[in-house]
Amino acid sequence: MIQKPSIPKGTRDFLPSEMMKRNYIFDTIKDVFCLYGFQPIETPAMENMSTLLGKYGEEGDKLLFKVLNSGDFISKVPDVIYNEKDSFKLTSQISEKGLHYDLTVPFARFVVQHRNEISFPFKRYQIQPVWRADRPQKGRYREFYQCDVDIIGSNSLLNEMELVQIIDDVFERFKMSTVLKINNRKILSGIVEIIGEDEHVTDITIAIDKLEKIGLDNVNNELLEKGVSKEAVLKLQPIFALEGNSEEKITQLENILINSETGKEGIEEIKTLFGYLKMFNLKTEVEFDLTLARGLNYYTGTIFEVKAKDFAIGSICGGGRYDNLAGIFGLPDVSGVGVSFGAERIFDVLVQLDLFPHEFPKTTKVLFINFGLKEEIYCLPILSKLRKSNVNAEIFMENAKMKKQMAYANDKKIPFVVMAGENEMNEGKFTLKNMKDGSQQLLTAEELINVLSK
Amino acid sequence: MIQKPSIPKGTRDFLPSEMMKRNYIFDTIKDVFCLYGFQPIETPAMENMSTLLGKYGEEGDKLLFKVLNSGDFISKVPDVIYNEKDSFKLTSQISEKGLHYDLTVPFARFVVQHRNEISFPFKRYQIQPVWRADRPQKGRYREFYQCDVDIIGSNSLLNEMELVQIIDDVFERFKMSTVLKINNRKILSGIVEIIGEDEHVTDITIAIDKLEKIGLDNVNNELLEKGVSKEAVLKLQPIFALEGNSEEKITQLENILINSETGKEGIEEIKTLFGYLKMFNLKTEVEFDLTLARGLNYYTGTIFEVKAKDFAIGSICGGGRYDNLAGIFGLPDVSGVGVSFGAERIFDVLVQLDLFPHEFPKTTKVLFINFGLKEEIYCLPILSKLRKSNVNAEIFMENAKMKKQMAYANDKKIPFVVMAGENEMNEGKFTLKNMKDGSQQLLTAEELINVLSK
Repeated sequence: MIQKPSIPKGTRDFLPSEMMKRNYIFDTIKDVFCLYGFQPIETPAMENMSTLLGKYGEEGDKLLFKVLNSGDFISKVPDVIYNEKDSFKLTSQISEKGLHYDLTVPFARFVVQHRNEISFPFKRYQIQPVWRADRPQKGRYREFYQCDVDIIGSNSLLNEMELVQIIDDVFERFKMSTVLKINNRKILSGIVEIIGEDEHVTDITIAIDKLEKIGLDNVNNELLEKGVSKEAVLKLQPIFALEGNSEEKITQLENILINSETGKEGIEEIKTLFGYLKMFNLKTEVEFDLTLARGLNYYTGTIFEVKAKDFAIGSICGGGRYDNLAGIFGLPDVSGVGVSFGAERIFDVLVQLDLFPHEFPKTTKVLFINFGLKEEIYCLPILSKLRKSNVNAEIFMENAKMKKQMAYANDKKIPFVVMAGENEMNEGKFTLKNMKDGSQQLLTAEELINVLSK
Repeated sequence: MIQKPSIPKGTRDFLPSEMMKRNYIFDTIKDVFCLYGFQPIETPAMENMSTLLGKYGEEGDKLLFKVLNSGDFISKVPDVIYNEKDSFKLTSQISEKGLHYDLTVPFARFVVQHRNEISFPFKRYQIQPVWRADRPQKGRYREFYQCDVDIIGSNSLLNEMELVQIIDDVFERFKMSTVLKINNRKILSGIVEIIGEDEHVTDITIAIDKLEKIGLDNVNNELLEKGVSKEAVLKLQPIFALEGNSEEKITQLENILINSETGKEGIEEIKTLFGYLKMFNLKTEVEFDLTLARGLNYYTGTIFEVKAKDFAIGSICGGGRYDNLAGIFGLPDVSGVGVSFGAERIFDVLVQLDLFPHEFPKTTKVLFINFGLKEEIYCLPILSKLRKSNVNAEIFMENAKMKKQMAYANDKKIPFVVMAGENEMNEGKFTLKNMKDGSQQLLTAEELINVLSK
């Protein structure tokens, strides 16, 4: 039976040319993470459903990929439930595991589970695929990588400072111009406190988050619809209209929030962070942005979001401080802070702005043309020596037509080709051809190895 | 609600100390793959069930992890099927996708699907986790990594030769002593042909595979039970009893198989391969082993298996040539050959024989002790400069007790610590402490950077 091959929608294969670019992104990010003392961990693709459920809101629960229990899973379902034929009720009976939806919840679970094996503060990075049963569309996939970096077990704002430095270093290495927007959830809490709408803190932060997208009028309407009082919405207007640079805005806010303890804490934190950042000559444009709220409700302090300056694509990195995440799993009062780099979007930006390097390490440096058995025997020991000298080298695996062998070298962007036929063998030499400029050199084995291992 | 954190049985978390060792294995293997011109690809964790089913035998189908369809999956199941309450029948109705069981079938699917985007011969490597719903036990996991390397679209035995060189290079880098056993399925086919038991080729290869494990008598009994004639079993005895070194055995077999075309082809191939291998000074002990059959039925030519010499743990690498795998997906007559390295078992061997390096790249080189805000301000610019010089460096994120900060450096095996308090600041200097020998130096910023970036 012949099958037409395909893969599930929203998933992708990666060809070597894409892998090299993706690895360039991951390796660059990893190198920077290590520069700041972060260490890698990995968690399983599958987590228990009890770990995942309820952490991403109702919508998130629906987007989890659930894994069917093994064996005769149906026989364990009570008839009374089975006979309802209800997808939702049945799911919990036949599926105990799911694919992780992000790396933050698995990390919180990891920290609690291994609290006695790790020492705090714990600095980890984690680069793995995550899965979401979202409707696939351009730029949105059902399997994609996240690159997370977090410190857990430290309240110090030095951590926020270092995350900004990491963001700056990463995008400098990518040669990308970026804007980093910073806010603090405590400032947002302070605002709802002073306008007397504590219970609407989520509605207000979500509304503020939309300010840029849908405009002031729509945000105001949305707040009123959510039940925020007219008076409170009015009180919010000067806050939405803050002007000046980051420091000026912060100073104005400091006066507005003078009567909110939480608000003042937030102002204090953001001032300290901006103070630290002045010490460094950052390439990234850093600005305080009160409209930044970020959807996820576990953030409690500083929040970050990065956008590319030369290409409109939404956030390419984001994160923040969360005080209670490990608490869900039984380890209260352990604060964490981290950011996640969006490798897929960074990929798109680098492609669009032509910022990928044109050569990648680890590609083949030289191809030996195959002229037949005798010539193979002549070439193989030299090929072996080249590899001992750490030169990535190949011999074409068949005595095929020259055109085919050259096409192979071109397709793989191999910069050098060695030809050794009758003439070269008689002289004990090798012809080395530079595929870029077409120049050729006749070399001894030793010379060849010297030239190529440079 | 507080949850006790756990992960699905048969899966694992990896702590930083384990990740460093695992990455050492993957990086070593990748480097060797690249040395021979192999390029990376990746395929999705989930494949369509139609891609996976029927490729691993009936037992394999049961071991696939199936992913539940999204949304209201039950409403689409016809009542007549639903009412049977049969796990097997229901599965195909509610699950279209599964987690890949190995990397070979996805690779075959990939090659056919992307035949117009890749150039043949195609040399790829692939290092990804695979999932099997096996009963978990010591050393057997439900999620584990495979490291596969394959060439597809070339019949040349040069490929087999290079795979042997790759095996040799990989285990030399790991400082492991290994035995590589080589056989050829065509020789096994020739044997069943000359004893007149064509239809029992699978039974006989499986029986031969068990020769070492269960002994000659049991193998003979098993063959008789499977319906192989007594006469044929008798004819097999001299073949089971071949003696001498690899070349002597091959020569004896050559005579036995003189009347089998397939058998002679197999002999010719193995002679050519051993001929090639003589050219190289291999560290690996290479032997022809007629009892090597390997379970997977898609192999058609050379087969390989590697064992560690100093540690009993079963096969740590294996593979072979398959002529028809891409045919399942509609691309006939494309021969491939490859091997897969078992990272988990290699890990166990390296641990048991204490062969892991004691230092890993990318760990933090220096920790700045945190004495408070004034001292932070003094240290941060130097820390930043060190990172610009590519030195992995940290400052402890809190002004904690000295003991705690030193314990952090010890836990992370950080070799140097910098202390800059009142005295150092007055002198404009830094105390650098070597954590191994306890020695201390008082250095200027410039000297410090020089010493650490060496």
